Amino acid sequence: MYEAAIIGGGPAGLAATMYCVRKGMDVQLITATLGGKSTLGLTLPDMSEYHIIKAREQVRTFQGKIEYLPHTWRTGKVTGIAETEAGFTLSLSGHGQPSEVEAERIVIATGTTPSPLGVPGEADFFGQGLGSSAISYSHLLRNRAAVVIGDSDRAIEAAIECAEQCEEVSLVLEPHATYSHRHLEFAGARENVEIYNGYRAVRIEGDEFARRMIICRDDRSAGGCGPEKTLFGEAFFVERTPRPNSNLVAGLVERTPTGEIRINEKNETSHKRIFAAGDVTTVGIEQILVALGEGARAGLSAYRQHTMQV
Amino acid sequence: MYEAAIIGGGPAGLAATMYCVRKGMDVQLITATLGGKSTLGLTLPDMSEYHIIKAREQVRTFQGKIEYLPHTWRTGKVTGIAETEAGFTLSLSGHGQPSEVEAERIVIATGTTPSPLGVPGEADFFGQGLGSSAISYSHLLRNRAAVVIGDSDRAIEAAIECAEQCEEVSLVLEPHATYSHRHLEFAGARENVEIYNGYRAVRIEGDEFARRMIICRDDRSAGGCGPEKTLFGEAFFVERTPRPNSNLVAGLVERTPTGEIRINEKNETSHKRIFAAGDVTTVGIEQILVALGEGARAGLSAYRQHTMQV
Repeated sequence: MYEAAIIGGGPAGLAATMYCVRKGMDVQLITATLGGKSTLGLTLPDMSEYHIIKAREQVRTFQGKIEYLPHTWRTGKVTGIAETEAGFTLSLSGHGQPSEVEAERIVIATGTTPSPLGVPGEADFFGQGLGSSAISYSHLLRNRAAVVIGDSDRAIEAAIECAEQCEEVSLVLEPHATYSHRHLEFAGARENVEIYNGYRAVRIEGDEFARRMIICRDDRSAGGCGPEKTLFGEAFFVERTPRPNSNLVAGLVERTPTGEIRINEKNETSHKRIFAAGDVTTVGIEQILVALGEGARAGLSAYRQHTMQV
Repeated sequence: MYEAAIIGGGPAGLAATMYCVRKGMDVQLITATLGGKSTLGLTLPDMSEYHIIKAREQVRTFQGKIEYLPHTWRTGKVTGIAETEAGFTLSLSGHGQPSEVEAERIVIATGTTPSPLGVPGEADFFGQGLGSSAISYSHLLRNRAAVVIGDSDRAIEAAIECAEQCEEVSLVLEPHATYSHRHLEFAGARENVEIYNGYRAVRIEGDEFARRMIICRDDRSAGGCGPEKTLFGEAFFVERTPRPNSNLVAGLVERTPTGEIRINEKNETSHKRIFAAGDVTTVGIEQILVALGEGARAGLSAYRQHTMQV
């Protein structure tokens, strides 16, 4: 029986693990890979690395330390969590690993699953002018042109954020989008935002970097796609709402209707032995430094629950 | 009128400032010094630096960048905050600075004021075997002896945390201490914790490092101090409850009875234009990495409030 199991090895899970390890807890990090989304990066034409806040260094430090503590982590995927008298039983799938892990308390740091557009060119240009987190890069876009596509308020907010810096922003709201009218009005009031509502992506084209997104208006009478339109830009953001990977604890903790785990300012959930950190929570800020801080806090809250039995 | 004023230049305030700057906001950081408590450190006999989680590097990076952005910060002390139609007016004291700053929103990152014991030797040994944050160093104390003194549950929790690692822990609860009996029972149940309840510190002695704390039982009939007792150790922690520096926003936001600013998981307070981060909040975890993450989040929440007017 471990004193804590941490599920997910992105920045939040790594920080939670490190803080538990430092406290001398008997922990087990279960993850598919070490590093999570922090290993992704976006390069833009003529971008200076200097302007990125480099919390990735801290992630790499934690990652490096945990790699050399083989007993603290294992490769695997948690497929189920059952509550027991003493804590939890985690069912695992993975090659050659035991199929169960017992732990007194758990930290959920499972992140989100992105919703790609699924159009030609998307995979090729991902990371090269095409990314999924405008919030991380909008400050690099002064006087540039950006294209934002998505299906919810998230895309609208990303477009407004880009509009603070960009010369022009094209906002594509997909046919199935749901959003608040206040948000859309707010975006529409910006002179440098052009809105394409009810359009969808057809393909992405470019050279070394993504340079064009071809969209069309959804039109059933025209076989699904009306005439094509080409949007040019130096930065393209797919801002579809990512799905929080929280189904594992569906019956155990309070979640929002869209699946984010509700936490308080100490990364505690509605279950006193379950903690959560990073993008799977209601924090809603996909930033490495924020995830690191949350992970540290979740680890320390778990430790406090362990020592004080609160 | 600035778009945001950040009050306090410790890790939380620096991170909040950096994220606002990166977003292109017109901000003003007002602080006595850049770096805050993160510039303090504790050295213990035979301590390996390797075992400290070095979030200080990130703080120094932010600090270095902000130093070279002279328009984003000023040295000063905020003495009052008045709400106005458009935001807030901050009154400042400081040499040769304007006496007022106007800002649409504010981030409070003012930290806490420590409560030193005020006994001989304390100032001399501070940082050399004597510190004020057992939580940051308890993992270094395996098989060592620690002495913890304080006036609340904080000291009891620190002693229990040290007891997880230490060979022995002396817990001194001062005569004016208020604490929960459950906490004290919990500490008393640990075989390696010796409790001195109703004692106070007389002086601290040592060589290069603090080595001895002399305490006495409070005894009015004996002129205030009963016979002295000497506690030996390799680490001494003053765990008096620090006072949150939150009086500036006393009438503006919800606080706990002990003065911590209540925040949610997004570092929002009860006032939609006031954000808070770091040790001044209800988070209650004095860790640099946590404060950095909180600052980043507070900055980004302030930015979101700015762009979305939510």
